[in-house]
Amino acid sequence: MEKSASRAAQNDEQAIRDLVDLWLRASEKGDVATVLSLMTDDVLFIVPGKVPFGKETFAANSGEMKDVKMTAVSDIKEIKVQGDWAWMHNFLKITVTPTGGQPQKLSGHVLSILRKNAEGNWQLARDANFVMPEKKT
Amino acid sequence: MEKSASRAAQNDEQAIRDLVDLWLRASEKGDVATVLSLMTDDVLFIVPGKVPFGKETFAANSGEMKDVKMTAVSDIKEIKVQGDWAWMHNFLKITVTPTGGQPQKLSGHVLSILRKNAEGNWQLARDANFVMPEKKT
Repeated sequence: MEKSASRAAQNDEQAIRDLVDLWLRASEKGDVATVLSLMTDDVLFIVPGKVPFGKETFAANSGEMKDVKMTAVSDIKEIKVQGDWAWMHNFLKITVTPTGGQPQKLSGHVLSILRKNAEGNWQLARDANFVMPEKKT
Repeated sequence: MEKSASRAAQNDEQAIRDLVDLWLRASEKGDVATVLSLMTDDVLFIVPGKVPFGKETFAANSGEMKDVKMTAVSDIKEIKVQGDWAWMHNFLKITVTPTGGQPQKLSGHVLSILRKNAEGNWQLARDANFVMPEKKT
């Protein structure tokens, strides 16, 4: 790989790390508008035991999260950038605490496809998300 | 996209469809060696409720399938080729019948990352696989 191409890939990788960080911090604050701006209009979420869903359903589900406090930590395992597309393997740990309730821990691997849009911003395009409640020990 | 690039992408897409077909037919025949040749050495399978696993574990698990008859049907939803990388969204229906037993139906979405190797052959590199037993109705 040429030096300039290598540097561009590093910048893209950092931009994708920033996207993940922004997504999680916005989720924690309940800032749905920001989260929605970080995904393509044709985004597809694939999760266990459900029919894959898109942006509208994601937004509707986010409304149900109003009365819970959420914190999230990501452990990015791999990012591979190829032109305007990238894929990422991530591991997410999420703690959800309903108002006045007990915290619930969820975690799981995520394989994501990302796309750089015309403005040069990366967005989530496809998301295979295995985040599930952790088994009680 | 230039015409030649477009044609190359079509050829790659067909090569990936052929890979899926070869994978499923080899699986049905219990031809593990062929299936293993269709994945990269650093392949990673991400499935619900398990630690992600690689080629060695895949091979070991295949040994457990000796006494079952398996048929599989794929419904490829999307393939996106970008240089030597591609991603694919697939939906798999699998029927597993133990010798003398009742057929069990499994199905699920799969999001895969594929890579073209130095010989020009596509191989599975990462696989987020939601195939699970279908709920009894």
